[in-house]
Amino acid sequence: MRMRNKPWAESYLTEHNDIVDLEAVHAHQVSEWFERQQPIHIEVGSGMGKFITTLAQQNPHINYVAIERDKNVMIRVLDKVREHNLTNIKLLCNDAVILTDYFRQGEVDRIYLNFSDPWPKKRHAKRRLTYRSFLALYQQILREDGELHFKTDNRGLFAYSLESMSQFGMYFTKINLNLHQEDEGDNIPTEYEHKFAEKGSRIYRMEAKFHSKQTTE
Amino acid sequence: MRMRNKPWAESYLTEHNDIVDLEAVHAHQVSEWFERQQPIHIEVGSGMGKFITTLAQQNPHINYVAIERDKNVMIRVLDKVREHNLTNIKLLCNDAVILTDYFRQGEVDRIYLNFSDPWPKKRHAKRRLTYRSFLALYQQILREDGELHFKTDNRGLFAYSLESMSQFGMYFTKINLNLHQEDEGDNIPTEYEHKFAEKGSRIYRMEAKFHSKQTTE
Repeated sequence: MRMRNKPWAESYLTEHNDIVDLEAVHAHQVSEWFERQQPIHIEVGSGMGKFITTLAQQNPHINYVAIERDKNVMIRVLDKVREHNLTNIKLLCNDAVILTDYFRQGEVDRIYLNFSDPWPKKRHAKRRLTYRSFLALYQQILREDGELHFKTDNRGLFAYSLESMSQFGMYFTKINLNLHQEDEGDNIPTEYEHKFAEKGSRIYRMEAKFHSKQTTE
Repeated sequence: MRMRNKPWAESYLTEHNDIVDLEAVHAHQVSEWFERQQPIHIEVGSGMGKFITTLAQQNPHINYVAIERDKNVMIRVLDKVREHNLTNIKLLCNDAVILTDYFRQGEVDRIYLNFSDPWPKKRHAKRRLTYRSFLALYQQILREDGELHFKTDNRGLFAYSLESMSQFGMYFTKINLNLHQEDEGDNIPTEYEHKFAEKGSRIYRMEAKFHSKQTTE
């Protein structure tokens, strides 16, 4: 998602370096940055942050990290964190490729991907957040039995992700092929999700894990 | 699918025991039963057989086995085989559970499942043809790198199958979440597929393989 460039975004984010990390200064010390030592859930590509800040309010026993590379978008997440005085969420303004430089091996309990850029052209497949090079990053930072939760309105990206993830050695513990018809009341919609659903788009959702490396059975 | 009972079905099928096997008399000798030694593709639950008899006409270099337990349905498949004088297809009137008694290990190149009974109640999950006990049968009879092709209009069954198959150690090489919008012209519809699609139901389709047993990567 692109927002109009706001020249003051960087100084606003820098001012709040107790919440926002712009330079990965907390690399490999993320757990220590939080007040309390508790499980870490992260969202890669947080957009304006409604999803992850809602989770942070609902689950004080979880530490959250919102990752978003666009500073003009990240300021919206920061607004929400400050508005609700949330202490169990930190913001990392950076690219997904730095994940393994930032988190220690097995440090993360759960990864969320919501409405990631579909990069529909085949030659851009490597940029999709479910391409195998990204899955390899997720596998490194997730603890044994950690989970990846992914939702999108993009049918092509969802089908691609099922292929890519299963080929990489992941398996699915829950799949919804029409989330808003099947939701049991615990879905937290993102900013865009309502719009998509109102237009009649289906929302697809999955929960996935990595097979242990020894064997598939 | 249930058809009205036809008392003459059994004698009609028995009369054509060059094409139909009612008693699994060709168990572990299926390849030898065919005129030519060539790859074997099977359909589990063939219904009235439009799908597999069309394939048999199009692909004389493949041997097909249609498996259907209902004799009143199997007579329709036999009609089609005789009408087109097909010599590369045999009919097995039996249950899917006998697969490993019938085919030798690794004898089968490809398995088709089309519009299998969804058994929507959770307590009937074991009867679904993508339940793990059936997957274990498929794994035994499929050659290394053999394929399972599955299509259905049932969203719940498709989601369940993605979960069940990936958990068993299978991966997906091709997924269509709305086949009739994505079809590249090579889809062969079954008797029921047109009706489902006309009612506005989506058709879901996948191609899947088993990870080799050594490792998932």
